[in-house]
Amino acid sequence: MAKTEKVTLQGNRQWLYTAVPEGKLTTDIFKLQEIDVPEPGPGEVLFRNLYLNIMPGNRAYMMMPDVMQAGRPMTSLAVGEVVASNDPGFAQGDVVEAFAPWQDFAVMPAQALTKRDGGHPVEHYMGLLGQTGYTAYFGFLHAGQPRAGETVLVSAAAGGVGSLVVQLAKLSGCRVVGIAGGREKCAWLERELGIDATIDYKAGNLDGQLKETCPEGVDLFFDNVGGPVLEAALDAMKFGGRIILCGNASQYDSDQPMVGPKGVPLTVILKNLTMRGFPYGAYSQLFSEAERNLWKWVQEGRIKPFYHVIEGLEQAPDGLVALLNGSNRGMAMVRV
Amino acid sequence: MAKTEKVTLQGNRQWLYTAVPEGKLTTDIFKLQEIDVPEPGPGEVLFRNLYLNIMPGNRAYMMMPDVMQAGRPMTSLAVGEVVASNDPGFAQGDVVEAFAPWQDFAVMPAQALTKRDGGHPVEHYMGLLGQTGYTAYFGFLHAGQPRAGETVLVSAAAGGVGSLVVQLAKLSGCRVVGIAGGREKCAWLERELGIDATIDYKAGNLDGQLKETCPEGVDLFFDNVGGPVLEAALDAMKFGGRIILCGNASQYDSDQPMVGPKGVPLTVILKNLTMRGFPYGAYSQLFSEAERNLWKWVQEGRIKPFYHVIEGLEQAPDGLVALLNGSNRGMAMVRV
Repeated sequence: MAKTEKVTLQGNRQWLYTAVPEGKLTTDIFKLQEIDVPEPGPGEVLFRNLYLNIMPGNRAYMMMPDVMQAGRPMTSLAVGEVVASNDPGFAQGDVVEAFAPWQDFAVMPAQALTKRDGGHPVEHYMGLLGQTGYTAYFGFLHAGQPRAGETVLVSAAAGGVGSLVVQLAKLSGCRVVGIAGGREKCAWLERELGIDATIDYKAGNLDGQLKETCPEGVDLFFDNVGGPVLEAALDAMKFGGRIILCGNASQYDSDQPMVGPKGVPLTVILKNLTMRGFPYGAYSQLFSEAERNLWKWVQEGRIKPFYHVIEGLEQAPDGLVALLNGSNRGMAMVRV
Repeated sequence: MAKTEKVTLQGNRQWLYTAVPEGKLTTDIFKLQEIDVPEPGPGEVLFRNLYLNIMPGNRAYMMMPDVMQAGRPMTSLAVGEVVASNDPGFAQGDVVEAFAPWQDFAVMPAQALTKRDGGHPVEHYMGLLGQTGYTAYFGFLHAGQPRAGETVLVSAAAGGVGSLVVQLAKLSGCRVVGIAGGREKCAWLERELGIDATIDYKAGNLDGQLKETCPEGVDLFFDNVGGPVLEAALDAMKFGGRIILCGNASQYDSDQPMVGPKGVPLTVILKNLTMRGFPYGAYSQLFSEAERNLWKWVQEGRIKPFYHVIEGLEQAPDGLVALLNGSNRGMAMVRV
């Protein structure tokens, strides 16, 4: 398709985000509609979405008016294929990544797109070689600086980021303890990821389970959830321990005002702890390192990405709600 | 006095700590009594207290049963002079530092004492060259890693640690903004310490004052107080900023359960912040470096220790209560 050729593609579904959720997310704030396939203006690119990201952070974005506005299309990180381009930097067939609307076809300015030209199977750009994988890679290896022999605690260990952090921690020679919701997820972590010990937070007595599984304390805690888990983990840290704050998933799906963990700052002071916030975008200069290493480790059989694929754009809201209710294992995505 | 000579010193006052305080500290939980001058047993040392430390942390210790027990003498960091020693490591006249009972004369095992033999005026071992000064030195310079040109925010800036951190920050070429309670303290910071800007937290609108004094955000926040000030400061941090958690003074003098700042973890994540807890004891191997540098800077007129001296052991509880109510400027101590 030449740049100037008129687009005549048919069938463009779009999920509208109609209202800021109050309390737990339900699917009725989303509305599916048919729209025309848009045409790219100067400097714009038309692409077809192939995969949409499903992660707890999507729920957080819904509360941030500078990210998501009710009445506009639902958006998330997405991987797609260029259909037509009015920008010299992109050509038909290019694989691109963007924070894109939930629709079959979308037009965005070229500068909002990132070309993914590593030649890997496309789903990996949504998982292992995208935000989820890079978050685990930089958050754990760069920000966390794990050392062999350390006791590493991972929350939401069966989730997208968590399931990769568990494997990177084993690869680093650490003893790894994972927190997950329910016996089934814990059993999965033991069976598939070779984790050393698990904690089922739904079974209660988090403090006791932490003492039992980490009798000498935790050196490095990779936290995806915040809330009561972070509060309990502060008490389980070794003197001088490090905490990587990666997510606050326990607090996103709620209309309650967030409260901080009561161990901040006193436990952090007395135990000489370091807490590092970690937005993966801060490492954008090093993305090619992550892509190279993560792919190499997959090829060598040392890590394995687990994908939880939701089939069909029409299932996307259900997939997000289910994720927030703790359904998934591995990295969740919608195949459009 | 020979090691074996019987001690016949007279007049030993002692402050008993009679009950764990409920809510704000009042002096009626302390009881002054006369006791005999104790005799040192084998391996023990008799010393006369010269200075007692008065700091917000004393109030925190009262809630920690492994540090302070009701019905026992009140204790704090102290500097004294050896009167008689049954240990080869100490001799009459030695200046010593210890976590000691609030009394004129005390006996402690030699291993609980630290000899201070730098030859400096004794009050400095309670101030600039003791816990207060070292906390500022290591917390700000080592843990904080300030760089010239950075905007540094200091809470309890007129306090013992704070007033030194302000000066170390100026010495490091930083722009320094201090938070203190009341116009008078703020004026003192401007007049005596050459601070660049001040925030009177008692005047309200902390968020607005932070925006006004730190329009480009805060690079490094040295926090002595926790609570609402820490919560507001999280929102005022630059992307990638650092927070040194040194104290939680706003929360000590209360029977309310501590709550954490609501910006933890989400603001810490989104802004890529680092929070470091800082117990000065973690740097004990480097105390001689601190002593050498701090004293040199005083000699060169580049920093100045401000002491708030409470006269007389009988005034110690009043001094602590007054400190907790925000009375002091500089490093507070009791001259026994």
